Amino acid sequence: MPGLVVLLSDFGQSEYAGVMRGVLARYPQPLRWCDLTHEVPPQAVRTGAWILLTSYRFFPEGSVFLAVVDPGVGTERQAVAVRTRRYFFVGPDNGLLWPAIADDGGPLEVVALPIPPGASQTFHGRDLFAPAAARLAGGEPLALLGPRTTVWERLTFHLQGREGEVVQIDRFGNLVTNLPPVPGARAYRFHAAGGAEGLQPEEVRYVTTYGAGRPEELVAVTGSAGTLELAVVGGSAAERLPIPLGCRLRLDPVT
Amino acid sequence: MPGLVVLLSDFGQSEYAGVMRGVLARYPQPLRWCDLTHEVPPQAVRTGAWILLTSYRFFPEGSVFLAVVDPGVGTERQAVAVRTRRYFFVGPDNGLLWPAIADDGGPLEVVALPIPPGASQTFHGRDLFAPAAARLAGGEPLALLGPRTTVWERLTFHLQGREGEVVQIDRFGNLVTNLPPVPGARAYRFHAAGGAEGLQPEEVRYVTTYGAGRPEELVAVTGSAGTLELAVVGGSAAERLPIPLGCRLRLDPVT
Amino acid sequence: MPGLVVLLSDFGQSEYAGVMRGVLARYPQPLRWCDLTHEVPPQAVRTGAWILLTSYRFFPEGSVFLAVVDPGVGTERQAVAVRTRRYFFVGPDNGLLWPAIADDGGPLEVVALPIPPGASQTFHGRDLFAPAAARLAGGEPLALLGPRTTVWERLTFHLQGREGEVVQIDRFGNLVTNLPPVPGARAYRFHAAGGAEGLQPEEVRYVTTYGAGRPEELVAVTGSAGTLELAVVGGSAAERLPIPLGCRLRLDPVT
Repeated sequence: MPGLVVLLSDFGQSEYAGVMRGVLARYPQPLRWCDLTHEVPPQAVRTGAWILLTSYRFFPEGSVFLAVVDPGVGTERQAVAVRTRRYFFVGPDNGLLWPAIADDGGPLEVVALPIPPGASQTFHGRDLFAPAAARLAGGEPLALLGPRTTVWERLTFHLQGREGEVVQIDRFGNLVTNLPPVPGARAYRFHAAGGAEGLQPEEVRYVTTYGAGRPEELVAVTGSAGTLELAVVGGSAAERLPIPLGCRLRLDPVT
Repeated sequence: MPGLVVLLSDFGQSEYAGVMRGVLARYPQPLRWCDLTHEVPPQAVRTGAWILLTSYRFFPEGSVFLAVVDPGVGTERQAVAVRTRRYFFVGPDNGLLWPAIADDGGPLEVVALPIPPGASQTFHGRDLFAPAAARLAGGEPLALLGPRTTVWERLTFHLQGREGEVVQIDRFGNLVTNLPPVPGARAYRFHAAGGAEGLQPEEVRYVTTYGAGRPEELVAVTGSAGTLELAVVGGSAAERLPIPLGCRLRLDPVT
Repeated sequence: MPGLVVLLSDFGQSEYAGVMRGVLARYPQPLRWCDLTHEVPPQAVRTGAWILLTSYRFFPEGSVFLAVVDPGVGTERQAVAVRTRRYFFVGPDNGLLWPAIADDGGPLEVVALPIPPGASQTFHGRDLFAPAAARLAGGEPLALLGPRTTVWERLTFHLQGREGEVVQIDRFGNLVTNLPPVPGARAYRFHAAGGAEGLQPEEVRYVTTYGAGRPEELVAVTGSAGTLELAVVGGSAAERLPIPLGCRLRLDPVT
């Protein structure tokens, strides 16, 4: 089967994403492409990194991830293409790619992508990253794409004991954390550790499915990434609680 | 041509939809996939059912509809795969699939999808429904996917004489009903029958196209599903009228 | 490789776009399709025309652009299919297609698409334009699609000296103009020439990349279309300035 390019960006459903697909379609060999998501909040590198980390393994081995959340586009941040054990990752070296790369065993081969003459200084997704991803999906060797380098920005998510961070606020208003559930916990007591100082500690029931809570109940649930989420049954936890994206949060089990 | 999977959900353009595409791409035989829409309002099973009912016939025969609007995910509601005369439908047994199934002549074969070990309790789209849809589109027989069952939830839209319901509010703010137009009507008088009590009965002109109305005029028009819609020319009927989704509405013809 | 249909519309991510993809999938020969964008603001023909103009050349030669921003659907405006030097364009004759057609050297062949019996009067995208685009991508000659005609609506963007227009407000809140940058300018002084009368003239620094500005600074930058944009670093120029879409704007260089 033709190689698969998987797109992730903060471009929304705009023509910026569409034009990247056009560049892939222009590659002379047949390719397949697939949107992971373009709804990373604008310039939210950490949320993009979380989504890539928790999603990449559901795609076929050999997929090329074309990931563009790039507030530093046109500055001296590196543009890289990376081979890991099972996948390829193409994007800015600003932390976006790192958690997924590390999770797949770390980088095996990294090249710096040179800026082609005439490239836009504001849209490397179109002029730099998409062409590189197309070449990788088309079977060209990574080493041909640029000189060897290493990944510099090694973003990690805050996780210290029971203190983690709100890595994502999803479409349903669920506050997604990077904290694993504790077996046997029947509830969690949460404290905002930074970024939501006025918030009072509160105890919320742990349920195994959204449907097991009462309407409007604030609950903790294990989300599809395998980590704890705060959710309001039939509503939005993000509207209920003044907890912003990136906020540090403790979730202590109550047994 | 490879089998086609058509996706409908309330996931928005999030990575939840993207990961389902990844699961389809991972199927060992080549498949095609296509988004119908992921913009069903969160947990709006009735609107999802309406969209599926009015859209399915525009897709090629043999298409597999992978439909996930699933507020009861992880509870005891069935997960089903259904064969009808011309299509396949995969999703929760909560009414979402039923109007389209019935419209295509009713179910010919129904199986209950078993929950695979390790499946997320909050994301059956990824772990249960997408793999089943991939197998059907890949040509595997429905009977291999699970034990025979029947569809339990048989959602119907309210339609009694000239009283129907607002089944959808679209991107343009059009209030879409399930009421057929009456030949020869030059206007309609509408009354909210439930859910918008303060609304005064009002007569609106019937026009054959949006362009035939005056700017800002509230009109009735036959929409692309063949049913009556209330629309504001160059504006939004949903902003003009306090009529919520699901509201019962009478539309009496004026000749 | 199979022919490629590229979709642009103001349908958002609704089922209207999805159903057009279904019609393409139903074509008996294999086709490929690709979304450019469906997020043209509702009925914003000028913005749609700008996006098509600045995006079309990134798609493979021979692509068929299926473009539907069509407030006059069902009225007597023509429906056309157009061949240019390298591409095909299908859509309403309301100005939407013209700037791209002209940019690719003008129309070589134009046909009027007849309305098929039973077509919806509100959804020509599904019943008229998508079938025509599928036939072109499938290799059928343009002349078979309808009688010869000419393009009537020849939309142009306002550009007189240093006065242009705000052609687009993008997802990041950047105010995109059709004004080219002036080599050597270190800043621009902007005046709203129409549509934002209360706006005071202001001088903004020119930077080559968003990252070169200070946080919250209002800057001018050359966007990915090669024209000047007003942007707020890490913020939204559209929220900062009362400049609506379509507003005429002067941008005088300061050297």
